[in-house]
Amino acid sequence: MVADRAGVMAVQVRLDPLHLALERGEDGRAVDLLFGLSSAEVASLLEGLPGPERGRLWRKIPEKSHGAILADLADPVRSSLLRRMAPEKVAEATKSLDIDDAVDILQDLPGPEEIEHVLRSMDVQNRRRLSSMLSYEEDQAGGLMDTDVVPVRAEVTLDVVARYLRSLGSLPEGTDSLMVVDREGHFLGTLSLRRVLTGDAQLTVGECMHSRHEAIPATLPAAEVSNLFAREDLVSAPVVDDQGRLLGRITVDDVVDVIRDQAERRMLHMVGLMQEEDTFSPVWGSAGRRAVWLGINLVTAFLAAWVIGHFEGTIRQVVALAILMPVVASMGGIAGSQTLTIVVRGLALGQLARANVKPLFLKELAIGTLNGLGWAAVVAVVGATWFDSPWLGVVFGAAMLVNLVVAALAGVGIPLGLRAMGIDPALAGGVLLTTVTDVIGFVSFLGLGALILL
Amino acid sequence: MVADRAGVMAVQVRLDPLHLALERGEDGRAVDLLFGLSSAEVASLLEGLPGPERGRLWRKIPEKSHGAILADLADPVRSSLLRRMAPEKVAEATKSLDIDDAVDILQDLPGPEEIEHVLRSMDVQNRRRLSSMLSYEEDQAGGLMDTDVVPVRAEVTLDVVARYLRSLGSLPEGTDSLMVVDREGHFLGTLSLRRVLTGDAQLTVGECMHSRHEAIPATLPAAEVSNLFAREDLVSAPVVDDQGRLLGRITVDDVVDVIRDQAERRMLHMVGLMQEEDTFSPVWGSAGRRAVWLGINLVTAFLAAWVIGHFEGTIRQVVALAILMPVVASMGGIAGSQTLTIVVRGLALGQLARANVKPLFLKELAIGTLNGLGWAAVVAVVGATWFDSPWLGVVFGAAMLVNLVVAALAGVGIPLGLRAMGIDPALAGGVLLTTVTDVIGFVSFLGLGALILL
Repeated sequence: MVADRAGVMAVQVRLDPLHLALERGEDGRAVDLLFGLSSAEVASLLEGLPGPERGRLWRKIPEKSHGAILADLADPVRSSLLRRMAPEKVAEATKSLDIDDAVDILQDLPGPEEIEHVLRSMDVQNRRRLSSMLSYEEDQAGGLMDTDVVPVRAEVTLDVVARYLRSLGSLPEGTDSLMVVDREGHFLGTLSLRRVLTGDAQLTVGECMHSRHEAIPATLPAAEVSNLFAREDLVSAPVVDDQGRLLGRITVDDVVDVIRDQAERRMLHMVGLMQEEDTFSPVWGSAGRRAVWLGINLVTAFLAAWVIGHFEGTIRQVVALAILMPVVASMGGIAGSQTLTIVVRGLALGQLARANVKPLFLKELAIGTLNGLGWAAVVAVVGATWFDSPWLGVVFGAAMLVNLVVAALAGVGIPLGLRAMGIDPALAGGVLLTTVTDVIGFVSFLGLGALILL
Repeated sequence: MVADRAGVMAVQVRLDPLHLALERGEDGRAVDLLFGLSSAEVASLLEGLPGPERGRLWRKIPEKSHGAILADLADPVRSSLLRRMAPEKVAEATKSLDIDDAVDILQDLPGPEEIEHVLRSMDVQNRRRLSSMLSYEEDQAGGLMDTDVVPVRAEVTLDVVARYLRSLGSLPEGTDSLMVVDREGHFLGTLSLRRVLTGDAQLTVGECMHSRHEAIPATLPAAEVSNLFAREDLVSAPVVDDQGRLLGRITVDDVVDVIRDQAERRMLHMVGLMQEEDTFSPVWGSAGRRAVWLGINLVTAFLAAWVIGHFEGTIRQVVALAILMPVVASMGGIAGSQTLTIVVRGLALGQLARANVKPLFLKELAIGTLNGLGWAAVVAVVGATWFDSPWLGVVFGAAMLVNLVVAALAGVGIPLGLRAMGIDPALAGGVLLTTVTDVIGFVSFLGLGALILL
């Protein structure tokens, strides 16, 4: 049963033969290659296939496996497959799933009409179970929770609990603790299975339960839920309504997905991709989504060009300025991005409050000045030697110092300002920052050039 | 017990008063503010303090709490505090910790000598427990595992297991299953606590255990361990040596840390910060670490300048070229980064194999061409109008198209090439890519300008 390297890598190893079989039209052979894989592994393979092949393979996969595979797929890939499934098939697929997985799938349907359509195709029990959950957003604690908790009362003894559990015959997957509630369903604490197994059988639940355990309100944002799980090393946590009544529980496997999604989104945001993006999404949609960011960048690039335009006469007389100006702008962009990244991360980790903004500014200013002085000296020598003009070297070095200092200030100020305005600093920060460093880089270099060299 | 928004945000809310108290020298009051917080919360607050205040607060915190807080700190902050602690204090602090946390702390000591020193200050039992674990790297399964597993034999009945557990009196935290082993300690399967509680007492462990469960080899890289946990929704998993003998187990809380660290590292790598970087690390060290990347960027920026230098005469005659050339380069950089990010993510998720590289290339090429044509038309009109020269518009548009197509090809080719050479594409990809888009942008625009406009 040991999973050697090859075993764990099973998924990647099968991607090539799978792709080959589909390319040759041997769809039957392709499905055979999926035999013995878990639904998560099949999902991972589907994500690695280009759109048309993915659709063909999907239709060949037995329908009884559709639900579990859908639950494991990344959102954009799931949406693309759901769009081609009949509502009855979607209803059927979600039937045997955990409630949180089923809700996730419904939330990826194109719109409320389609969700309504699928709900109507379900039996009453399944519909009721799902519709109450759909009132929570996907990125709230309520949208992450599962309702399959095992409640117990504080007054009973561990012995009674043990007999009760044996009578149930099984417990929901991922259950590591029971939820202690009062008569009205208010959450009182948790009782770990470990405690049931090892505690004195005559003790009551109330005496053994863990009541320091904080319950999570259903409206808490998913990002804070994941911070809480990571900080407190939780495996599962109770979710309550605003009256403190137990609604369900969140398990760590869903939190792991949230953390991975967040990291991915932050990375995509940095290049202006706002939606989750499937590696093999169709060309037209992708081109459009990327065009938005290119358009924004074009405006800022023209702003920089307009600034350069003011120095047309200067450039005509000292062409060396045109040759070297991208160096000043580019160094400012890099230095600023470094600061920006550190600050964006600090914000995400909740490390920055009003009080430590000043030391952060001072630290980054010091780093910017140090690196500014160092690289100013280097470029001054290079510039002066290359164009045989000491004064050009002076202008080059001075502009470099100015731009690296400005980059440090902008790298701290921009994300803090965006956050204060409620805008995601990872999304808009980069483009704003490079606009600042480009404009300041060109103005300082060309401006000093006009002053000193003409 | 309900954690309202304010409750979950407790950490951030206390950062300001804490900082204020330390600034005023009221260190006693600062420590009081930590009262009632978990070690994880204290760690989080320490991470948000600038270096000197952090050190002062640390010395005021009762030593018996040091171990738990050190275990929860981010690596760079932990290292900075450890450097100022006596080996005996470190030995004392790690004594009561889980073995994986203790090992993590030892691995953050400055060097093997310091580790040796701390080990020698420990009692025999503690030393023996730790030194066997130190042979595994921090980023391997062995470095993540804990040795506090509860082994059971396949032949005994659930009834016997239940009585055995009760005799133990407690189980290690995070235990959700027992490990089934044979006489030689070979791993056979897992038995969940749920099954012990709900199964028929007369069944044997062998009949109830979950044997499909894959054991993780101790040398498996941490990144693959986290992929496995995420894909299979694991809470804990057994770790075995190359003979299949049970060594310990990995729990999901450690995997959550790995996932967060990886995401953070990828983000920092993209701006050339290779080490983990504390938000408030000392200025000199930070400046040096960032200077490396700025230096690499300077070389590539001078390469681009050298390319522009070849068109000195052209620029002198048509200054508009100098004004507009940053626009071409910048758009190529953005488009290329978008492609690069998608490909880097696909590689990280294991979605890319040899077979689907071709469709990926074709898709990105199509997107690059579409966006290239669209933005070429826009800039051609703007350029022609601005400088009242239709031919300048043609040159501008053509260069834009060329650069966006090249950016798409480079965005796919560079990360795949780096990966093939064993280099982290997130680290070196960005700087290589912008070098390509800068050089191609300048060459195509100035070259076409020289051909058509002179």
